[in-house]
Amino acid sequence: MHIDHIGIAVKDLSSSDNLFSKLLNTSPFKHETLEHQKVEVSFFQTGESKLELLQGIGEDSPISKFIEKKGEGIHHIAFLVEDIYTEIDRMKNEGFEPLQESPRLGADQKLVFFFHPKTTNGVLIELCQKQSKP
Amino acid sequence: MHIDHIGIAVKDLSSSDNLFSKLLNTSPFKHETLEHQKVEVSFFQTGESKLELLQGIGEDSPISKFIEKKGEGIHHIAFLVEDIYTEIDRMKNEGFEPLQESPRLGADQKLVFFFHPKTTNGVLIELCQKQSKP
Repeated sequence: MHIDHIGIAVKDLSSSDNLFSKLLNTSPFKHETLEHQKVEVSFFQTGESKLELLQGIGEDSPISKFIEKKGEGIHHIAFLVEDIYTEIDRMKNEGFEPLQESPRLGADQKLVFFFHPKTTNGVLIELCQKQSKP
Repeated sequence: MHIDHIGIAVKDLSSSDNLFSKLLNTSPFKHETLEHQKVEVSFFQTGESKLELLQGIGEDSPISKFIEKKGEGIHHIAFLVEDIYTEIDRMKNEGFEPLQESPRLGADQKLVFFFHPKTTNGVLIELCQKQSKP
């Protein structure tokens, strides 16, 4: 288990791409639009981990709501795991409260699953797993 | 440059140590008290990066004030750099606003330096550098 990425909520992906390109002294290596999750994202590599910038699509996007409530900033930490189903079961047994029923397809072609920040010291936790190639 | 650690503000280090031990399925490998910065910290290893839990010492600790304002949660991202002075100059030239005059001794025996979150999309950024052995 290591940090796959840190998700950062931003208002304007284009200007934040520019800002983080300066900060990290490198350019984003990928952009994706996830219509079903109402986000546009970009990824920056930094060592073995990534920064994921997320801009909401529409006012009812979870990211837009987050920014309205808390402002721009860090949104979640994602941990890469080998077997997401085993890890979900382990964490549920430890008392962490899931935010969804089962993993779904997220950015970067990964299976993703979130736990509620109220059981994790205010930190929204994502588990993600690479999908095996068909 | 890679992510050295993610700093997480907590109210009670002991209970949060317990919580993150369950979450990460590992124990903290180090505890430190930084009197001059008014924090007690613990570190968890996860891949090449760490999670740093920070509890304020006293109500005027920056961490206590952060929690009073925003609640428990992610406080900062720290990037490990080879030459902190060169990196500070580069970032200042890019327009990022420093929070201090010069690097100071932080946790983990590293030189640390912070930039203001208002110039970094609401994300408090720390640079840190290992000190060369005397």
